[in-house]
Amino acid sequence: MSDPSQARIAVIGLGSMGYGMATSLRRAGHVVVAFDLNQAAVARFVGEGGSGATTPAEAAAGAHAVLSVVVNAAQTEDVLFGPGGCAEAMAPGSVFVSSATMAPEKASVLAARIEAFGALYLDAPISGGAQRAATGELTVLASGSAEAFRQARPLLDAIAAKVFELGPQPGTAAAFKMVNQLLAGVHIAAACEAIAFAGKLGLDIGKVYEVITASAGNSWMFENRIPHVLDNDYSPRSAVDIFVKDLGIVADMAHARKVPAPVAGTALQMFLMTAAAGMGREDDASVARLYAQLMNTELLPK
Amino acid sequence: MSDPSQARIAVIGLGSMGYGMATSLRRAGHVVVAFDLNQAAVARFVGEGGSGATTPAEAAAGAHAVLSVVVNAAQTEDVLFGPGGCAEAMAPGSVFVSSATMAPEKASVLAARIEAFGALYLDAPISGGAQRAATGELTVLASGSAEAFRQARPLLDAIAAKVFELGPQPGTAAAFKMVNQLLAGVHIAAACEAIAFAGKLGLDIGKVYEVITASAGNSWMFENRIPHVLDNDYSPRSAVDIFVKDLGIVADMAHARKVPAPVAGTALQMFLMTAAAGMGREDDASVARLYAQLMNTELLPK
Repeated sequence: MSDPSQARIAVIGLGSMGYGMATSLRRAGHVVVAFDLNQAAVARFVGEGGSGATTPAEAAAGAHAVLSVVVNAAQTEDVLFGPGGCAEAMAPGSVFVSSATMAPEKASVLAARIEAFGALYLDAPISGGAQRAATGELTVLASGSAEAFRQARPLLDAIAAKVFELGPQPGTAAAFKMVNQLLAGVHIAAACEAIAFAGKLGLDIGKVYEVITASAGNSWMFENRIPHVLDNDYSPRSAVDIFVKDLGIVADMAHARKVPAPVAGTALQMFLMTAAAGMGREDDASVARLYAQLMNTELLPK
Repeated sequence: MSDPSQARIAVIGLGSMGYGMATSLRRAGHVVVAFDLNQAAVARFVGEGGSGATTPAEAAAGAHAVLSVVVNAAQTEDVLFGPGGCAEAMAPGSVFVSSATMAPEKASVLAARIEAFGALYLDAPISGGAQRAATGELTVLASGSAEAFRQARPLLDAIAAKVFELGPQPGTAAAFKMVNQLLAGVHIAAACEAIAFAGKLGLDIGKVYEVITASAGNSWMFENRIPHVLDNDYSPRSAVDIFVKDLGIVADMAHARKVPAPVAGTALQMFLMTAAAGMGREDDASVARLYAQLMNTELLPK
């Protein structure tokens, strides 16, 4: 990349995370060409001065790097190898940076397939919400070859406050991300269970939030999600279905390796119950609402 | 209390928490008379300039406040009403400050019984480890009458960085503490499950610690307990049996109120399994060791 301050970068997926990352890349001086199945998101990005494309291939043509910000392995495979997919359009030596959460085996297979086209693959799942995507302060867990890291460096510098370099094999970063998702999912389910328990004890759940965030029972997720319950606002920042998927991957991985994971398995059942009750696309703090509905009670601060 | 800088305070229980709190009280200028069933701990305290007693009653005689730092409701009842118990010895208007974790109903009953003797009761469970006990920087969750708070104030000022005043009824603070223990217990079990999963995936668990503590999967307990696993040091800072007890109280409370608590229930089973395997008195991070033993693997950083 001759002038890293003006790299041409494709962003595939303009959801709340992808849009923020695309914006951070533009702010860092890069030329960003974006694609999303939702062309209204692309039009908004173009309206702000970015460039748009009508297929992943069109976005990827001539790009130094392709940043894929989709939900799972199946969507990532579509972006690469589906109709209008970018694998064939990518220049030799350019890098595909994959941020979807997926099983390590899937990341390994996708990496091998894209490398057969002469391009590079960086396994690069992310942690941090939409706000940190917009400010370019995500945490990135990354693994891949030294060449893939080198080619992706200007992109990583623009989107992340912290990049963990976790090894040369695609799939390693995915495995670290699944460990994080096990904990994150359990902590959300536990936060919702605890706040429902507190409500049923007659405690002021606003005060409970204040006490717990200053005590040893605190978690990043408790602190982040319980305000949604206190505000009675279940518009999706991250949906229940995301943890149905991610704890499902954890359960499959654990099963395949004969690892017992009873706490994560129970948390998965709580997300499944919440999705079964019709809240799959709503905010994942809806697990608390499920408890409240079951107990025919309201969960609001006093 | 005429001169709060020189109150006479009894401390019952000189374990790692009680010893630190007694020391903090002396550092604040109070006259501290300590009792413990283990007279060696009392002798050590006397050796450092404190005073000792051979029964709770002897320690409580003439004290403005009695701070009870024992493990559970049964021990608290013994301290108050057992042989040599302090209830009869307490001066009218003095306050019994109870820090044991117990069901709210137990706290209410103990308060009513001590108030019948003319003394006051402050329900005052604590959060924070032995280190913060020693430096006088605990978090105290407290509920009780205005008079109880007033009488206990010099004591609270000496032991706590933060006192949450949670209402006039003994039992309210106990309920807040049980919500905290639900979360703390689940987070320890989840931390141990996640680190065992990570080990079985072949990841460097030292690196996992670094990544998770910077990511959304973090919890206070993950950050605090996983170093015990990394150091392969299971000497008890807080024992498995503590969470067998506390999650047992949570389960009983939830059951009595028909509140489902499946995640906490599963975590309780993991502590029970670890205790059943002979590790009840060892550090609660031993849940990770149980997984490692089951899988015939070692959990050490690379």
